[in-house]
Parts: sequence; C-alpha cells; structure tokens
Amino acid sequence: MIDLTLIGIGTGNPDHVTLEAAKAMSAADLILIPLKGEDKADLAGLRLEICRSCVTNPATRIASFDLPVRDPATPDYLQRVNDWHDQIAAVWQGAIEEHLGQGGGSRVAFLVWGDPSLYDSTLRIAERLARQVPLRLKVIPGITAIQTLCAAHAIPLNDLAAPFTITTGRRLREAGWPEGADTAVVMLDSGGAFAEIDPQGVRIWWGAYVGMANQLLLAGPLAEVATQITAARAAARAEHGWIMDIYLMRRDTGQAARA
Amino acid sequence: MIDLTLIGIGTGNPDHVTLEAAKAMSAADLILIPLKGEDKADLAGLRLEICRSCVTNPATRIASFDLPVRDPATPDYLQRVNDWHDQIAAVWQGAIEEHLGQGGGSRVAFLVWGDPSLYDSTLRIAERLARQVPLRLKVIPGITAIQTLCAAHAIPLNDLAAPFTITTGRRLREAGWPEGADTAVVMLDSGGAFAEIDPQGVRIWWGAYVGMANQLLLAGPLAEVATQITAARAAARAEHGWIMDIYLMRRDTGQAARA
Ligand SMILES: C[S@@+](CC[C@H](N)C(=O)[O-])C[C@H]1O[C@@H](n2cnc3c(N)ncnc32)[C@H](O)[C@@H]1O
Ligand SMILES: C[S@@+](CC[C@H](N)C(=O)[O-])C[C@H]1O[C@@H](n2cnc3c(N)ncnc32)[C@H](O)[C@@H]1O
Repeated sequence: MIDLTLIGIGTGNPDHVTLEAAKAMSAADLILIPLKGEDKADLAGLRLEICRSCVTNPATRIASFDLPVRDPATPDYLQRVNDWHDQIAAVWQGAIEEHLGQGGGSRVAFLVWGDPSLYDSTLRIAERLARQVPLRLKVIPGITAIQTLCAAHAIPLNDLAAPFTITTGRRLREAGWPEGADTAVVMLDSGGAFAEIDPQGVRIWWGAYVGMANQLLLAGPLAEVATQITAARAAARAEHGWIMDIYLMRRDTGQAARA
Repeated sequence: MIDLTLIGIGTGNPDHVTLEAAKAMSAADLILIPLKGEDKADLAGLRLEICRSCVTNPATRIASFDLPVRDPATPDYLQRVNDWHDQIAAVWQGAIEEHLGQGGGSRVAFLVWGDPSLYDSTLRIAERLARQVPLRLKVIPGITAIQTLCAAHAIPLNDLAAPFTITTGRRLREAGWPEGADTAVVMLDSGGAFAEIDPQGVRIWWGAYVGMANQLLLAGPLAEVATQITAARAAARAEHGWIMDIYLMRRDTGQAARA
C-alpha cells in the first residue's frame, strides 16, 4: 500500500507554501519531481529549490524524472491528453517502484504547481495509478495563480455577491465572453486571446510569472492596454524562453457594487 | 502613512497558513481581528488561535473590535451592503487610530478568512479607508474554501480544459444552473439551494466546516444525496449554532474527459 500525497506548492513564490505542505514534504520517504522539457528548466529548478528549502527530514529522498510528451499524431485534443495521462501513470509507477525499491518506505509525495485541483492533471493520473497499485491518496491545497494574480493587483476576484467564471484561452477564443458572468479569469492561454474579444466596457488585470521574482503586471481598460500586454508578453517570452500568464477581465455593468 | 496588509489565513485549518502570511503577522505592529457576532464566536476564537500560533514577534499587538451590523431597514441588498461597508471603514479607522495611538507603529494587519479576493469585503473596505487615510495596501493570498473542499474530496475543480463557474446560493436559486459551464461551485448559501435545481445527471461534493476539526463531507448523485445533505446541514447547524458550507456540482456531459 502506497501513501500518495499530492502537495500544492503555490505558483513560484516559496513563501506561498503552507505549513501543511512543508510538513507533508518532510513526512515523505520520497518526493518525485516531474521534468517537463527544456523550456521549463527554470520551473523545475524553482520547484526543486522550494522543495529543498522546506524539507527538514534528512531521510526524505528527492528525485526527478522525465515526463513523456504528448503524441502530436493523435488528432483529437481530449483523446491525445487522455492517452498521455495513461503514459504518465505508467512512468510514475516505474519511478515509484525504482526509488522505493532502492531506499524503502511507502510514503510518496508529488509537488504540484499551484493547487492540485486547478487545471492540473496530477489527480487524474493518480486515479489511473490507483487502478494498478493499492493507493491511499491525500491532497494538500496550494495557493493558485488566480489568487496570486488578485493579491498582486490588490483586487477582488468577484463583484459583490456576483458569480464569476474561470476559463481557458482556447475556450475564450472559441466561445467568446463566457455566458452568465461579468468577471472572467483566463488561464492556459497560449497567446493573447484577450485581443480577440470586443473590448468595449472591459477592464483587464494581467500578470505573468505571478509571485515569482520576474513578475510582470499590467492593468487598465482592455481597449487601451491590449497592445501593450501583447508586446510585454512577446518580449518576456523572448527573454525567458517560456511564459506563464493569467488575466482577469471585468465587464462594466454599472451596478452599485462597482462603487 | 499606514501600511495595511490584508492577510489570507485559510478557512480554519491553522496549517493552511502560508509562510508569507505567518511572516506578515510577525511584521505587523498591530493585528486587528473583527468580531462578527455571538453565533460566530467559534470562528473569532479560531482566528485568534491561528494568529497567536503564528506571531513570534513579542512587539506585535493583537486587538479585536466589534463590527457594526447591516441595517435591515435598507431594502436594496447592494445598497444595504455598501452602506454597511462605509460604516465598517469608519469603525476600522477608529480602531486603528486608537490602538496605534496607544502603542505606536504604522504597520497594521487584518486577518481575512480564506483568501482576501474571494467573496470577502475587506478589500472594498480598505479602498474606502484609503479615501480617508494615506495608505499603502498589500494583499497576501490564502487558501480558499474552494480548494479546501476539492482537496478534502480529492477531486479536480474543473473537467479537462473546461470552464467552471463560482456562484452564490442566492444566485443559484434565482437564476438556476449557471450558463456556459458544467461545473459550478456554490458559496454563501444560506440553506440548500442545491435542492431546488433539476438533479438529473448532476453529482455533488459537499463540505461543511472544511479544513476544521468538525469537517463534514458528503458526495454522490444529487438525486440520491440531497436529502441526506439537507439533514446533515440542519443537524450540524443545530449542534454548533452556525454553519459554513460549500459545494461543487458537476453535470454529466458524457465527454471523454470524464474517463
Ligand atoms: C496547467 S495550469 C496550472 C494551474 C495551477 N495548478 C494553479 O493552481 O494555478 C497552468 C496555467 O496556470 C497559470 N499560471 C500558473 N502559474 C502562473 C504564474 N506564476 N504566473 C502566471 N500564470 C500562472 C497560467 O495561466 C498557466 O497557463
Ligand atoms: C464570506 S465568504 C468568504 C470566503 C473566503 N474568503 C474564502 O476564501 O473561502 C463565506 C463562504 O465561504 C465558504 N466557506 C468559508 N469557509 C468555509 C469552511 N471552513 N467550510 C465550508 N465553507 C466555507 C462558505 O460557502 C461561506 O458561505
């Protein structure tokens, strides 16, 4: 029986780690850190640094392993992702068996960027693994990019008592402004979907590398700042080789809540 | 000039406090804890306990003060809340002047339940205060009830690459299932709005006092568990005198992502 803990570690600020997450790291026999490809070497390094700074137990082993890449030959997006998750589960199983086999123990932890529940595949992969290996699963929440964005801009996520929607760049591009909410947070945007909607009455709060040393923030009426954000995004990506960004957009409804 | 820090402290689990939040508490000259009325005495106590366990600086003063109550005579909901926020800002200003006047210093912190950006009025009140007093505002994110709920049930918040909506009990009751998303998280529900929607194909994951010692969790097809949740809710409220609950509902779309 393996005790598998998925630990949310926040989105790059080592101080966003919770006390619970730090304790869970030191309670593990083995911490596995997946590597996702050259371009994100910065992120892998940061994750390792966060891990090293939290682990106080000398018996905890930290190991990293390479993730398989998605097969571009599978045309359907969801099918491609599902196949990929199956492959990753097999790679996890191999890494767990190899490392626990060498050093013993049964408590394995995975560090998850942000919160494990939010646009992250780790939980889905753990479910697949549980079909192969007897598993006790525990999830430790972490600070998300959404909260880090709002904190950095010092803005509320929602209008007073109003609903809001979290969506993806792909979806915003395909379906336009989400129905039923005047606030939308957009994640997983491969590039500038905000520039494709009608900017009339819309404000945007944008952030890249939020919580990290190289954090970038821009905000204003979408019509005025869209070009500036697009340029900042391109420059940052060119400089770092990769970018992670997120934004909140609000439509003016003229409600009293706006006051 | 006052340095005002709004510190998210999570939703009741002292271990959900982040390292940043703990540091910010000890960096404050004064930590103010608002008291919200008899029924939530448990919560005020818990907040104080979290605060005491984090503050290592002997010079940090911790003080609590009573919040005014909303005026039930104002018929419009938003107007009533806006008036109330104005009053609270005035009370804050009084409390800050009184306590800083006595002990000196300029760094004031407020502890905020969960995350300051999510269905919380502290940021709006800080904006009002900033119109009266020169203020430097800083926000420190905290673990929300949404993430604590998902972690407790070990479930993803979103379907694969799909959008989701966060809404309130009032809104669910008035407008039904939110348009444009198959996942909805409901907060601020004064009682069982889930029982008023069509349960066909809907699963629910419910939690009360999430992250706290008396956490309650129930999950299943809405048609099967709605009655059970209503009963558990009533019993818990009777036992504790107050309740805070939250739930995630997902409509079955038969997508591959469901696998
Ligand atoms: C695969 S999702 C993971 C989200 C993560 N689980 C969380 O809780 O925030 C990656 C997306 O999250 C957002 N994101 C994560 N970290 C970020 C950061 N430090 N700055 C800006 N956006 C970030 C971006 O929208 C990115 O495309
Ligand atoms: C005024 S809002 C504050 C939300 C908070 N800022 C957060 O980040 O979660 C209060 C609502 O949050 C949810 N909530 C907060 N703490 C909770 C807990 N420990 N258990 C269940 N629900 C909670 C409930 O839906 C409650 O009605």
